[in-house]
Amino acid sequence: MLTGRMMDFPLTVTHLLERVRTFFPGVQVVSRRGDRSLERRTYKDIYTRGVRLAAALAKLGVGPGDRVATLCWNHGEHLEAYLAVPAMGAVLHTLNLRLAPSEIGYIANHAKDRVLLVDKSLLPLYAKFRADVPSLEHVFVLDGKEEGLGHYESLIANSDPSGFTFPKLDENTAAMLCYTSGTTGKAKGVLYSHRSTVLHALVACMRDNLGIGEDDVVLPVVPMFHAAAWGLPYEAAATGAKLVFPGPHLDPESILDLIERERVTFAGGVPTIWIGILDRLDRERGRWDLSSLRRMIVGGAAAPPAMIDGFAKRHGIEVIHAWGMTEMNPLGTLARVKAGMGTISEQRHLAYRSSQGYPVVFVEQRHVSDDGAVLPWDNASMGELEVRGPWVASTYFGDEGADRFTNDGWFKTGDVVTICPEGYVRICDRSKDVIKSGGEWISSVALESALMAHPAVLEAAVFAATHPKWSERPVAAVVFREGMRASEDELATHLAATFPKYWLPDAYVVLPQIPRTSTGKFLKTKLRDDFGSILEKQEERLTAPP
Amino acid sequence: MLTGRMMDFPLTVTHLLERVRTFFPGVQVVSRRGDRSLERRTYKDIYTRGVRLAAALAKLGVGPGDRVATLCWNHGEHLEAYLAVPAMGAVLHTLNLRLAPSEIGYIANHAKDRVLLVDKSLLPLYAKFRADVPSLEHVFVLDGKEEGLGHYESLIANSDPSGFTFPKLDENTAAMLCYTSGTTGKAKGVLYSHRSTVLHALVACMRDNLGIGEDDVVLPVVPMFHAAAWGLPYEAAATGAKLVFPGPHLDPESILDLIERERVTFAGGVPTIWIGILDRLDRERGRWDLSSLRRMIVGGAAAPPAMIDGFAKRHGIEVIHAWGMTEMNPLGTLARVKAGMGTISEQRHLAYRSSQGYPVVFVEQRHVSDDGAVLPWDNASMGELEVRGPWVASTYFGDEGADRFTNDGWFKTGDVVTICPEGYVRICDRSKDVIKSGGEWISSVALESALMAHPAVLEAAVFAATHPKWSERPVAAVVFREGMRASEDELATHLAATFPKYWLPDAYVVLPQIPRTSTGKFLKTKLRDDFGSILEKQEERLTAPP
Repeated sequence: MLTGRMMDFPLTVTHLLERVRTFFPGVQVVSRRGDRSLERRTYKDIYTRGVRLAAALAKLGVGPGDRVATLCWNHGEHLEAYLAVPAMGAVLHTLNLRLAPSEIGYIANHAKDRVLLVDKSLLPLYAKFRADVPSLEHVFVLDGKEEGLGHYESLIANSDPSGFTFPKLDENTAAMLCYTSGTTGKAKGVLYSHRSTVLHALVACMRDNLGIGEDDVVLPVVPMFHAAAWGLPYEAAATGAKLVFPGPHLDPESILDLIERERVTFAGGVPTIWIGILDRLDRERGRWDLSSLRRMIVGGAAAPPAMIDGFAKRHGIEVIHAWGMTEMNPLGTLARVKAGMGTISEQRHLAYRSSQGYPVVFVEQRHVSDDGAVLPWDNASMGELEVRGPWVASTYFGDEGADRFTNDGWFKTGDVVTICPEGYVRICDRSKDVIKSGGEWISSVALESALMAHPAVLEAAVFAATHPKWSERPVAAVVFREGMRASEDELATHLAATFPKYWLPDAYVVLPQIPRTSTGKFLKTKLRDDFGSILEKQEERLTAPP
Repeated sequence: MLTGRMMDFPLTVTHLLERVRTFFPGVQVVSRRGDRSLERRTYKDIYTRGVRLAAALAKLGVGPGDRVATLCWNHGEHLEAYLAVPAMGAVLHTLNLRLAPSEIGYIANHAKDRVLLVDKSLLPLYAKFRADVPSLEHVFVLDGKEEGLGHYESLIANSDPSGFTFPKLDENTAAMLCYTSGTTGKAKGVLYSHRSTVLHALVACMRDNLGIGEDDVVLPVVPMFHAAAWGLPYEAAATGAKLVFPGPHLDPESILDLIERERVTFAGGVPTIWIGILDRLDRERGRWDLSSLRRMIVGGAAAPPAMIDGFAKRHGIEVIHAWGMTEMNPLGTLARVKAGMGTISEQRHLAYRSSQGYPVVFVEQRHVSDDGAVLPWDNASMGELEVRGPWVASTYFGDEGADRFTNDGWFKTGDVVTICPEGYVRICDRSKDVIKSGGEWISSVALESALMAHPAVLEAAVFAATHPKWSERPVAAVVFREGMRASEDELATHLAATFPKYWLPDAYVVLPQIPRTSTGKFLKTKLRDDFGSILEKQEERLTAPP
């Protein structure tokens, strides 16, 4: 091998932190506080405070590879930790505050977190798991003080940064630890490197992908405790974009106010957030001036086509559908319609936009059958999606879950998909959610999308109920829009226009809301627990659980 | 150090080649031939032919690290070599056809090229240096046949690709060898790695940089034998953008026809090309429909502000000024006006846009005085620009020119610059061109820009003439626009509005054209050779050389 003669210059988060200080010192970082006030800092502040944070942590004995955990909403202090903790060679561990306290305790203990930064409003949650985490040596409270615990602002204020410099890091150094939400089994940790985090951010900023630039005002609605907030904080730092953090206020009205007030150009969040916002916009037309908004990214779960279409048609807002996983840093695919496909019908256009899309550069994909055969991209063969690339996990932290990694270097996503000849992926189900009815596979996601296109339906989740003859049959849980309603027959007729008869749900359950995971995904295990035997006890149809 | 647990997935050109085959097989690659006809291939063709090329070269014994040279204009076959030669683990060496034959021979011999791909129209040039390159074992002629030499199309047609697969490469494997144009001293080789080439392409595609995307139609006017055509072929492959190659037809009319006919959205070239095109557009308004053109990138030499302004004001075309070097793969800085700077006057806006700009992410810069002191970014201190980053050379091929690399890891660009507090670089001169007059430094580039803003001046080059009292004094070589003229006094008055009196040229030389380097830059050594002693022999003023 002949080696190129280029500099061995590492891809590190440190460069991003130093870049915002050097080229974008005056750009604002806005945080909405618990009391709804807006605090304005600048990238220069973030840098200065980040250095102080790192110097203080170093003085406390935090060394290379040590885990510094956060239990925080999205705000400027969280950004300081995002940048300064990896830059000092330690590992930022973002704890998911939506998990059960016992699960958070399990994760923090599993990660051997030494330091915790925690929002004052989340101290009651912390109190519930603190006993489970003996490794925790230092706890600092943000946005307030608490007797007996450290105070973040005092830590920053009393830090002596003179003589502190960020170390030169190898780009494969661990930067960040994110645990999967673990809807089945124990949560597992994914240990991002500086390299994976930086490459992911650069590729996300390509015009065809998230396309974030210096003139953007970025609103990460997606929590910073969820898959690195899709890298949005790093993407903003890489480009010098203004950042607006919503804090704990994630209701539609608060988000819409923030977009209008801060002239947000780019927002990212999970479908449930945007479904709520679309509903609000539809009901209060003209209340908010959203003219600044260039694009919204929706990901983290499959977005209903009706929502994507509704934003575009009724409000002129482009929603880009992306797919990724905690194990992928997280961006995998993005549903842009290729210009090269020429003019296509409006219906096909929406079908592509509401698919999971095709992989971003340097992510490779295939899907395989139950017996491991690689399947054709024929838009029909269903199989488990496997991916590989520079920002895909090679193992879990602690080498758990080895069965998720193939011998030939692919990560098994657990998503059952079809792939069309153009390379667009369509998720039919999580492999554990796919409905296996009399030897045929039925896609719960396809049924849900169709149901949510019905005017009376706000949300729908389709799950497998056990059936004495067919092994499994689909059942739909439905939430109707306020003041609206549709009969079981109407819904069945609506679906029959698209699907073969054997795909139609055997029963419909009307609920006030769909149970959700900590990250806003439908919690189908709960639906199966509550209604999985409904087809054996037909009298329970159309009623909520006791 | 705790290492992240992400896949060790290399950044290689191979991925780009496989990506266009998989996701953009039908996208066109258009080449203008020597006879002006347009040949259309697709990325699928490029892939298929690229595999055949690699298989054939492998069969000829081309192995890892072997140099495969090209002596070619911009066309689809050159793209095949750009992608397939690095993907097979060999090194693409692009010979600069504008150099003197003896220089090309020196370079090809220095590189120990084993194979040459040469355009039929360039065979007379090849004949002049073939004897100097004993390492050449195989020569294949493109776009025609030649007795006694190999035929590229037969090589492709007769290749047996069955059983050939691209090897798994380390990302630090050498991919491409580009020599500097060597305006002073011998040309030196820069050996790009797969990693540097890929990182450069990804960063170039960020929205804030070149921002190339899948919906672009990219016209690389910049030659593929010059600094990897700024990576445009790789950036198009990374995104699936359509490519349009101009072949040998680089006159304004041919370029404008191609933009109109192929609906080009993005074009890149050196200032002299765009100066000629602007002149043509001004003289024939409305002849060409350039409505498809989204942006043009100008680089390779300092672009006159009057040109950037002229395109914007008179033709509504955005010209982005970029700076780079062969030693940088080549992109270094880009002159976008930061949104964060708020509303600024039109004059300041143009001043920023016509500066070299600020560095793209992961390029770091500083400038130093003659005695090595790092200078402040005060918009006044002049010093040599130094850069570092993942796509900056660490040494030259063969370890020549070691004095261009500092002990602390920076590359000395040879450009004398000022840097403003916002980080924008402004090149005052090549270090060898700076005019040292009585202990003061005078920027030839600043004077040239001002002269070219005069309505009668098409081009101007300012250079140092020896002076008995002041050591050096500036002299301006001027080319007037067709049918226009300005007196020496008029030009002096024009300059006096901007510069201190001691900056004003002591003499003006009117020329039919400015002598140029092989890559279109002003050849100031020639001006100094011809007119460097003009101030000692004042009677030669205002006349062309004999």
